[in-house]
Amino acid sequence: MTLRKVKICGTGEYLPGRPVTDIEMDDRLGVARGWTRKTTDVAVRYFADGETASEMGAKAAYAALDDAGLRFSDVDCLVCASGTREQALPCTAVYIQQAMGQERSGVPAFDVDATCLSFLNALDVMSCMIAAGRYRRVLIVSTEIASLGLDWRHKESAALFGDGAAAVVLAPAEEGERSAIVGASLRTYADGAAFSEIRAGGSRRHPRGPQPAEPDDYLFRMDGPAIFKMAARLLPDFADDLLRATGSRMSDFKAVVPHQGSAMAVRLLRKKLGIAESQLVYITPDHGNTIAASIPMGLHEAIRSGRIVRGDRVLMIGTAAGLTLGGLVLDY
Amino acid sequence: MTLRKVKICGTGEYLPGRPVTDIEMDDRLGVARGWTRKTTDVAVRYFADGETASEMGAKAAYAALDDAGLRFSDVDCLVCASGTREQALPCTAVYIQQAMGQERSGVPAFDVDATCLSFLNALDVMSCMIAAGRYRRVLIVSTEIASLGLDWRHKESAALFGDGAAAVVLAPAEEGERSAIVGASLRTYADGAAFSEIRAGGSRRHPRGPQPAEPDDYLFRMDGPAIFKMAARLLPDFADDLLRATGSRMSDFKAVVPHQGSAMAVRLLRKKLGIAESQLVYITPDHGNTIAASIPMGLHEAIRSGRIVRGDRVLMIGTAAGLTLGGLVLDY
Repeated sequence: MTLRKVKICGTGEYLPGRPVTDIEMDDRLGVARGWTRKTTDVAVRYFADGETASEMGAKAAYAALDDAGLRFSDVDCLVCASGTREQALPCTAVYIQQAMGQERSGVPAFDVDATCLSFLNALDVMSCMIAAGRYRRVLIVSTEIASLGLDWRHKESAALFGDGAAAVVLAPAEEGERSAIVGASLRTYADGAAFSEIRAGGSRRHPRGPQPAEPDDYLFRMDGPAIFKMAARLLPDFADDLLRATGSRMSDFKAVVPHQGSAMAVRLLRKKLGIAESQLVYITPDHGNTIAASIPMGLHEAIRSGRIVRGDRVLMIGTAAGLTLGGLVLDY
Repeated sequence: MTLRKVKICGTGEYLPGRPVTDIEMDDRLGVARGWTRKTTDVAVRYFADGETASEMGAKAAYAALDDAGLRFSDVDCLVCASGTREQALPCTAVYIQQAMGQERSGVPAFDVDATCLSFLNALDVMSCMIAAGRYRRVLIVSTEIASLGLDWRHKESAALFGDGAAAVVLAPAEEGERSAIVGASLRTYADGAAFSEIRAGGSRRHPRGPQPAEPDDYLFRMDGPAIFKMAARLLPDFADDLLRATGSRMSDFKAVVPHQGSAMAVRLLRKKLGIAESQLVYITPDHGNTIAASIPMGLHEAIRSGRIVRGDRVLMIGTAAGLTLGGLVLDY
């Protein structure tokens, strides 16, 4: 593993318009009051209310810049790292640049997509670009509108997701600073590709194609038990290899920021990897699963609350549609 | 600019099932015979005939591996660099891994999207990951089905596009080899975002959202004159800066591989940047505009025909929806 001397110098989060409580969700799903909370542990998630993903992303991006004490003109690259998109073409980063009012800046804007692990992967990717001297300060933005794709007939899944955006500013670490990405790992097993999908939106189920999309194909479908089983099988070795390669033990981590796939997925991670409750950053109750925005939101919340301070070693880890497993060891 | 000691050690191309001649296109468009050829200079393009983008990408990927004398097990990362997608979720690289029959390999699979410049940008991005020691051999695949999104009422645009896939294997240059990416540049101006779009497919025009997609929103729309005007204004300074930063003069390039946006776009590039006819790799007549696959196809054709040999300096350059300008200087 090659250490990359980069630093997260600011984080930001944006939660859109409308908080949706567990009680409102119970009523909408037609289940007994208490069911949503008990099944998903989500007390409140936020649904976008007319806002676009790029507008949400722009707000998180400016919050991260403020936090870093920087202005847009200080960054030289804008990366959108989301699992969902705003349009088929062009990429969402273009619309974030536009929503930030920076449409004449010339700042390069592109997307990096590893579904729910897009942020973790973008951090890995862009730290290499900074280490190689290609960019200096990079804005990474994850912004997700999950609510439009919910299938309300699948109550367990519909009750799980929230909308929102999070962003970080990534820059070279200064001389003498300990901040670094110590190592990262990503593994994809496409034999799990059908376990979480939105089938429409591309060429495979194009309205003009041989197999046009049905209305349901625009909805998110997830085979939770299949993902759970596959993740349970693959995660222990995956994590062991990452820890070994980065010279870490689980107890070294001040905080573990998991992808908040579901309360059950987070419990699985804890149990399988031996993560202590005091290490776990758990934001599911007041965010739900915000797809790729989930990990940077967890990071933001943990930094804001003082649970992560400079010099702390942090593990980000999770699974994504693909099926992809990802982990990244950060010295904050 | 920081030189990255990487080498393209194999290239591959795949053109799908059905060749569509200019005459067939004339008839389909209801124009006089000869119009398509005269207007677009495209004599033949290929349309996918039931194949998926990932199946096409898998074929180009195996061709690139064969060319490099490598097997799939020799690569440690698979990147899809396309402007169109197969599904909204997960990313297309997952389906390419599956179509390659490598769904249990664990090889990380993710997408990098800078619309028509996705390949150029992925080459830039992944060369940094190799330089940083993060990956060793990377398969970059661009695969596009443009034909489904054609708006047959806009004859100039419909007559332009073709489907297809291209791939390269990127690896560290060996000791003593001259191969390198000398430098690259990307600039995005979102004030041109509306000039080329597929509006549906994401959250902005979701069937469940406040502004559901109309059937036309699944089609590609392009304001050619607006792109032309904006590109003409921005390209000269963009190219000057890239040449200066890489210590190159236009005459240094054995070959210039442009994005084959249209015959007119390629002419504009030639004129504005002073590219000699002998330098220009021009594959529009027998490919059409194959979106992000266009640059790697040009590269593949030029290498295959012996126009580019080891040690030659090559410029890849073009514009993309965004509006994004991109250029990359490669010592092959």
